[in-house]
Amino acid sequence: MIKFILFISIYLSTSVLLSQKGDTLFISSIYKEALTKGESYENLRKLCKDIGNRLSGSAAAQMAVEWGKNTMINYGFDSVYLQKIMVPHWDRGTTERAWIQVEKEQISLNILALGGSVSTNGLMNGDVIEFASLNELKKATAAQVQGKIVFINQHMADEEINTFKAYGGCSSIRLKGAIEAGKLGAKAVLIRSLGLAIDDHPHTGVMSYDSSVKKIPAAALSTQDADFLSLKLKSNKLKITLEMNCKTLEDEPSYNVIAEMRGNKSHKEIITFGGHLDSWDTGEGAHDDGAGVVHCMEALRILKKLNYSPQHTLRVVLFMNEENGNMGGKGYANFSSARGEKQIAALESDRGGFAPRGFSCDGNPNQVKFLETLASFFKPYELHVFEKGYGGVDIGPLKNQFPGIPLFGFVPDSQRYFDFHHTPNDVFENVNKRELELGAAAISSFIYLLDQNL
Amino acid sequence: MIKFILFISIYLSTSVLLSQKGDTLFISSIYKEALTKGESYENLRKLCKDIGNRLSGSAAAQMAVEWGKNTMINYGFDSVYLQKIMVPHWDRGTTERAWIQVEKEQISLNILALGGSVSTNGLMNGDVIEFASLNELKKATAAQVQGKIVFINQHMADEEINTFKAYGGCSSIRLKGAIEAGKLGAKAVLIRSLGLAIDDHPHTGVMSYDSSVKKIPAAALSTQDADFLSLKLKSNKLKITLEMNCKTLEDEPSYNVIAEMRGNKSHKEIITFGGHLDSWDTGEGAHDDGAGVVHCMEALRILKKLNYSPQHTLRVVLFMNEENGNMGGKGYANFSSARGEKQIAALESDRGGFAPRGFSCDGNPNQVKFLETLASFFKPYELHVFEKGYGGVDIGPLKNQFPGIPLFGFVPDSQRYFDFHHTPNDVFENVNKRELELGAAAISSFIYLLDQNL
Repeated sequence: MIKFILFISIYLSTSVLLSQKGDTLFISSIYKEALTKGESYENLRKLCKDIGNRLSGSAAAQMAVEWGKNTMINYGFDSVYLQKIMVPHWDRGTTERAWIQVEKEQISLNILALGGSVSTNGLMNGDVIEFASLNELKKATAAQVQGKIVFINQHMADEEINTFKAYGGCSSIRLKGAIEAGKLGAKAVLIRSLGLAIDDHPHTGVMSYDSSVKKIPAAALSTQDADFLSLKLKSNKLKITLEMNCKTLEDEPSYNVIAEMRGNKSHKEIITFGGHLDSWDTGEGAHDDGAGVVHCMEALRILKKLNYSPQHTLRVVLFMNEENGNMGGKGYANFSSARGEKQIAALESDRGGFAPRGFSCDGNPNQVKFLETLASFFKPYELHVFEKGYGGVDIGPLKNQFPGIPLFGFVPDSQRYFDFHHTPNDVFENVNKRELELGAAAISSFIYLLDQNL
Repeated sequence: MIKFILFISIYLSTSVLLSQKGDTLFISSIYKEALTKGESYENLRKLCKDIGNRLSGSAAAQMAVEWGKNTMINYGFDSVYLQKIMVPHWDRGTTERAWIQVEKEQISLNILALGGSVSTNGLMNGDVIEFASLNELKKATAAQVQGKIVFINQHMADEEINTFKAYGGCSSIRLKGAIEAGKLGAKAVLIRSLGLAIDDHPHTGVMSYDSSVKKIPAAALSTQDADFLSLKLKSNKLKITLEMNCKTLEDEPSYNVIAEMRGNKSHKEIITFGGHLDSWDTGEGAHDDGAGVVHCMEALRILKKLNYSPQHTLRVVLFMNEENGNMGGKGYANFSSARGEKQIAALESDRGGFAPRGFSCDGNPNQVKFLETLASFFKPYELHVFEKGYGGVDIGPLKNQFPGIPLFGFVPDSQRYFDFHHTPNDVFENVNKRELELGAAAISSFIYLLDQNL
């Protein structure tokens, strides 16, 4: 009996070792394909340069849907199709300007309306009142704020090592600034852009209103202009003049773009992975989230190129409307559930096309432990983050429809992300080819390991 | 007795824990200083923009010496001084051009003479012969090569994950190309630039001659022009015309710039850390090695700012002449030895100002093991490489004078380094502020830990 157990355990550990060796070799061929014959960079160039930025509801977003569909049809995946959803349609309009008068000089400020803002209805003019943070604004009285233009100059925390943490600690000024300023009777709200660098690119992004509070216009100042305005306010009372003719239109039909390789063993068990096809309406949506889109298309392309025969159905979803509504993410979870599918894992890439650091898991302790067991496969590729953490906005709704599903987030280096995020500077030229390709290779390898081990 | 041992071991482990907690807090304050009040980025701006590139022997190199000295005097370190050395003086001259004639069209090629090359003595014209690698060239006969211009089109290996490995596998074309082509009677040698990106920036760098082989001119083509030339050669016999009037002048006096905080416990025991002040004569030497220079100045500035009282003498050395002779590195090792100092460890930063990954150790197994014990301090800062590896060119000679000394290399992310290395593109704008600051913080923390634990 003991001999038999010994035999079995040697047999098992040998076969585990053999299978690990096979995995290691296969991952090596994934990386080689991505780095020497990769298509992610050229795909990103097309998305950024031939289409450009692509806010939900825009003509460019529809072009991106067609591009994603056609590119994946050309890759010859088992099936490629569109899933219809309805998306909000906000339009920046044609005018967006702000200035202050300092003595005899009129000085322009560099602004971008926040996504979802109402217009100023022509020129709007008011005294500026500065607050160092959203909390300081909340402590103010209506008497102080009434009829003024509120300027929230809260800084993202430079001392945070991970920039997403710095962003998380500050993003409420964008999400809630108009509500809090509106409650106190402000005319409009300007926020310091959510970025760590001091530069001249304002950062847009979604804001929100509360139905019980008057809607006021909201825009972001570049960090440089926020510093400038703050400096000027130290020695002057200032009025700002503001004009923005952005507006919210009727909801529009749009689509998630879906492509898959059918599973051989259990094709009704789905591993979903994707990024979002929509972007803000400035720059080219290169890091946010063109990178995630081409990462995931490339991850599946490579598996097909290497003649990989998946056990479960591997499905890429290019989600629409992550930026201002998440209708794609919600719609996809409902769609999959309605079809009676079983979602066994999902991954999202939506943190830019930078050098890979690892993967995070939004899941239970066993799922996190499983993630940790994958770390050794990625050590030769300089990935080291394998820990509990966030999945992604688009795959988030899967949790409601498929309780217990592990959600994984691709984790690239975060240092440069908020230099580009939601700015005119988020362009193709700011994505490094190798960093992008290494991301695609890491994701392709990860999806392979999920398929092998789930 | 057992009680006593138990007591001692509890006492020891408690004091180790307390000391670890102290280290953790101190490192946290180092990072905070670097990220919120850091001076590394502004120092780099001055070095790059006020001085610019600074090849050994040039006036700019002498300006950089003065700048380094004055900046560190202003920081109020215990002592700041210059250590004289003699350095080679090569000058690129005023003319550097190449073209091919394709049918009736004259097409310019983008070249940079390699450092140390002889001139062409006016216009030089010859048939081009292409080799896919240095090994292919070595296999050729004099009959094939005699009187021709050799073009070595060897590519760095895209599939290597670490780009320094790809560089190491290819750099012999630059170092030995002129010798191997010269042996076979070539007129001149052109190499494909040592870079992974396809772009229009040629990469210069040091080359060498052999006293027994005729010296021929040597230059690098941009990767884009190398591809173009190779393509044209597939269907045409081509002549290249080449003109370069570079020359080697008399050796010049120059200096290492040295600054230190004196050790309180054993001031004759030195921990040396530095980068190199010289750069190639193109771009601004921002990543190579302005970043290393400002990293190390900042590392010491922060320790002083935090009122740290070192046990050993902490010494920053801004080395001169890493790029083409290493006279600074050799001279410093001799200088320290002649003064009867004891060098107990050395660190170099010469791999760019990118996001930190960790530290490598050129040392014995115990020294590598010691390095591994430091990893846990850096986990919150996303460093994960703590392993055997290279130290640096400048600190290398310390090994001869101080046998057994552990040499440490700062290891930032390598992906973008060879996009800039030795090119017109190695400018301040291509260094990210936070990535640079995180490097300075990592090095400052590492020097602190060395001082505490050696």
